[in-house]
Amino acid sequence: MDEFDIETVAEDDLDEPVLIEGLPGVGHVGKLAAEHLLEEYNSDLLKRVYSEHFPPQVTVEDGHTKLACLEFHAVRPDEGRELLVLTGDHQAQDGAGHYRLAETILDIADSAGVSRLFALGGVPTGELVDDHAVIGAATGGDVLTDLEEMGVEFREDEPAGGIVGVSGLLLGLGERRGFEGSCLMGETSGYLVDPKSAKAVLEVLQEALGFTVDFETLEDRAEEMEEVVRRIQELEGGMSAPSDDNLRYIG
Amino acid sequence: MDEFDIETVAEDDLDEPVLIEGLPGVGHVGKLAAEHLLEEYNSDLLKRVYSEHFPPQVTVEDGHTKLACLEFHAVRPDEGRELLVLTGDHQAQDGAGHYRLAETILDIADSAGVSRLFALGGVPTGELVDDHAVIGAATGGDVLTDLEEMGVEFREDEPAGGIVGVSGLLLGLGERRGFEGSCLMGETSGYLVDPKSAKAVLEVLQEALGFTVDFETLEDRAEEMEEVVRRIQELEGGMSAPSDDNLRYIG
Amino acid sequence: MDEFDIETVAEDDLDEPVLIEGLPGVGHVGKLAAEHLLEEYNSDLLKRVYSEHFPPQVTVEDGHTKLACLEFHAVRPDEGRELLVLTGDHQAQDGAGHYRLAETILDIADSAGVSRLFALGGVPTGELVDDHAVIGAATGGDVLTDLEEMGVEFREDEPAGGIVGVSGLLLGLGERRGFEGSCLMGETSGYLVDPKSAKAVLEVLQEALGFTVDFETLEDRAEEMEEVVRRIQELEGGMSAPSDDNLRYIG
Amino acid sequence: MDEFDIETVAEDDLDEPVLIEGLPGVGHVGKLAAEHLLEEYNSDLLKRVYSEHFPPQVTVEDGHTKLACLEFHAVRPDEGRELLVLTGDHQAQDGAGHYRLAETILDIADSAGVSRLFALGGVPTGELVDDHAVIGAATGGDVLTDLEEMGVEFREDEPAGGIVGVSGLLLGLGERRGFEGSCLMGETSGYLVDPKSAKAVLEVLQEALGFTVDFETLEDRAEEMEEVVRRIQELEGGMSAPSDDNLRYIG
Repeated sequence: MDEFDIETVAEDDLDEPVLIEGLPGVGHVGKLAAEHLLEEYNSDLLKRVYSEHFPPQVTVEDGHTKLACLEFHAVRPDEGRELLVLTGDHQAQDGAGHYRLAETILDIADSAGVSRLFALGGVPTGELVDDHAVIGAATGGDVLTDLEEMGVEFREDEPAGGIVGVSGLLLGLGERRGFEGSCLMGETSGYLVDPKSAKAVLEVLQEALGFTVDFETLEDRAEEMEEVVRRIQELEGGMSAPSDDNLRYIG
Repeated sequence: MDEFDIETVAEDDLDEPVLIEGLPGVGHVGKLAAEHLLEEYNSDLLKRVYSEHFPPQVTVEDGHTKLACLEFHAVRPDEGRELLVLTGDHQAQDGAGHYRLAETILDIADSAGVSRLFALGGVPTGELVDDHAVIGAATGGDVLTDLEEMGVEFREDEPAGGIVGVSGLLLGLGERRGFEGSCLMGETSGYLVDPKSAKAVLEVLQEALGFTVDFETLEDRAEEMEEVVRRIQELEGGMSAPSDDNLRYIG
Repeated sequence: MDEFDIETVAEDDLDEPVLIEGLPGVGHVGKLAAEHLLEEYNSDLLKRVYSEHFPPQVTVEDGHTKLACLEFHAVRPDEGRELLVLTGDHQAQDGAGHYRLAETILDIADSAGVSRLFALGGVPTGELVDDHAVIGAATGGDVLTDLEEMGVEFREDEPAGGIVGVSGLLLGLGERRGFEGSCLMGETSGYLVDPKSAKAVLEVLQEALGFTVDFETLEDRAEEMEEVVRRIQELEGGMSAPSDDNLRYIG
Repeated sequence: MDEFDIETVAEDDLDEPVLIEGLPGVGHVGKLAAEHLLEEYNSDLLKRVYSEHFPPQVTVEDGHTKLACLEFHAVRPDEGRELLVLTGDHQAQDGAGHYRLAETILDIADSAGVSRLFALGGVPTGELVDDHAVIGAATGGDVLTDLEEMGVEFREDEPAGGIVGVSGLLLGLGERRGFEGSCLMGETSGYLVDPKSAKAVLEVLQEALGFTVDFETLEDRAEEMEEVVRRIQELEGGMSAPSDDNLRYIG
């Protein structure tokens, strides 16, 4: 295996698709959002990317082993731009690996005719929130204005530590290669897998790209999560902010 | 020395052997099982693999230093398939090293005519168990069915964190190169070197490959371990679950 | 992107400039000093250096993402030598990266005609100090004598652990390539961003290079910091040495 | 700078010298022993080895910076074999670096006509000892017998964790390249820089190589250390085993 090994599963000529990145991160917001698109629309698995920068492990599903990888899917929504959706269970495990993985993703995007990309994720607030604002960051000026009109908030000092990992690098490296990139980050407590925050992010995305997705399954999952939170809060006598210990791994 | 340095100790034309991997891991189950095969049957050391991905150290045996390495042995059981048995004291120390070591092992297996491989290991239960189930994972469908008939359990969510290290990668990378791979994981407390779990794993393996191995020495070691556990439990007034502190390094 | 990617923003023929390095470190002394020069004199951004040895992240300023990088600026003070000023938010994240980044900086300096360099930084004293001595270290003999006459102190065992990171390597590697290098380290508590220590370092630098810079903005920042310290000391009932917990991240 | 950069300071045709390695380790035993040889005999600095696998730092001596390096010295004792003595302040900082540094040292040794090498070090006992046994390990059989006759002890399970770092690898990798290697490890508490253990190691070495070195300065340092220990024990009311906290960094 090379440093990055790209396996082509199917060929599909997407028409200048938009790249949507939804890898694991805060509240699994980006991952939930990207996977929701795969579930709601017809999607075809196009490519897998394997790498020695991923953890040295296989997952096991019903007894079958599956090597750590990223997956690119062709998605054609009801309306608007065609999508190249990137999902997976891992980010790179080392600094140089992050840079090289991002470049590999941009190479694939470039070959597929992508010129615009959205990195989806969450931004932690540290407390449970009812209203999920979507914070933005982008490579260029026009994009900022467009997204601002859709209700995306651009705040002077947020996210405070910058954007770390593949989402940040797709914009940082992408800009240098001429991609127009936006990062949409749903506010989320940071304690829970957060389908409601994923919905907020997708609402911006559908307005930006002109599709209309059904949110029912995401709302169902959000309700389940809220029920879980309610029960924990009852057990704790109505504490408003759950502690790390009991909520971090719920989802 | 190159990144991997393969030393050929002896030539031996095995007839389409099955690769058996038994490197250190949970309960030393895989290592005990593989070494039991070396002790019970005539075995010849064929190759050593040295690597800068191993710890920078030598072991000392009776004053002689020995550089960290893996060893491939030719083993011809009483009946059934010939075996290429992989043993050693180390796994790779870094992520890329795990991937590259697994590929190097597969290269050697490929040259030796291997098309089927078994990775042996343990899966931790967190408590002392009397009955050692063997959990399985595999690269392909037929293998799953065959092993299931031999009593191997394939569970939906186990092992929970996937299979980490060389055992997982031999299956994950092996599948991509056309190997048929199975991982046999004996249940074990995780606190003790566990010869009984190694026996359970070997019982499956001998049924799968058609040999009949003598378990006396393994049973003797298992009894010694049980005696150690009994004494500790007496000292502690019959606690049923030993603590990490007093049992982890026993063996 | 290559391991190091040098982007030329503007061309400028500086006349045998002196390299001034002010990257993040103890008390942000070097960074404050270098940035003060950029603010007080006309400066032009000449080059950016990107690298996979930097953290995998972008900073966000008013919604725009900016990939981690170092920046070289042309600075022409009121009098004396022209300057090539190196600033940035990051050091390399791994050992080899430190060495290779330092070599890359020296390559750029060499191309720009640099033969003399100053690495600016802080040396921690562990307590708040009123008087900021400047400790020195240098590659060669004449430089030592010159700086000693300007009040720089060369102490037998300081800094105790040597000079770690890019400042140390610019001298250590620079000497082997024929650069004349000096490191000027302002004493600082180690708890606070320290504009007063930065001023002490710049006072030596201006004497060494023959310019006269205005310190008003640096003095204003120093007063703000002192006001912050006073308030904390009042809250704590006049403790003279602030604890790590309340002061480390002030600035 | 390349991964390893070898600077030749002086040429010297040693006559089939024996390599003596004394880099930092337990009790600084090896380092003290090697430096004692440099002090007692005429020695010439032949080569320096710089590497990005060393820490990214310079030491500062009287204001002058010195880049991290290893040094090879030519030493001609009063009698017996000529020596190539390796000293320095650092070991490699990463696993592969250890392997590659050891190979680089062996390359230099090979060019200098070395066929026999001694790695000097300490083995921790965990308590203050009056009598410093010397534990041995070696690459081949005859060496073992010779050293055993000189009072070196070869123990079945010691050192328990093998020999880690450059000392171990010089034997492990050296054996594969045809070097005859021995490791001499003086027993030492592990809490203190231990000149007495260094003397014990040198006493074996001089018998093995046929020279007679003066131990006065080493004995003086040993007495100073013992005086320090006595004072600490008095302060603590005569505790026989010093705690880590008060003795670890003494020397």
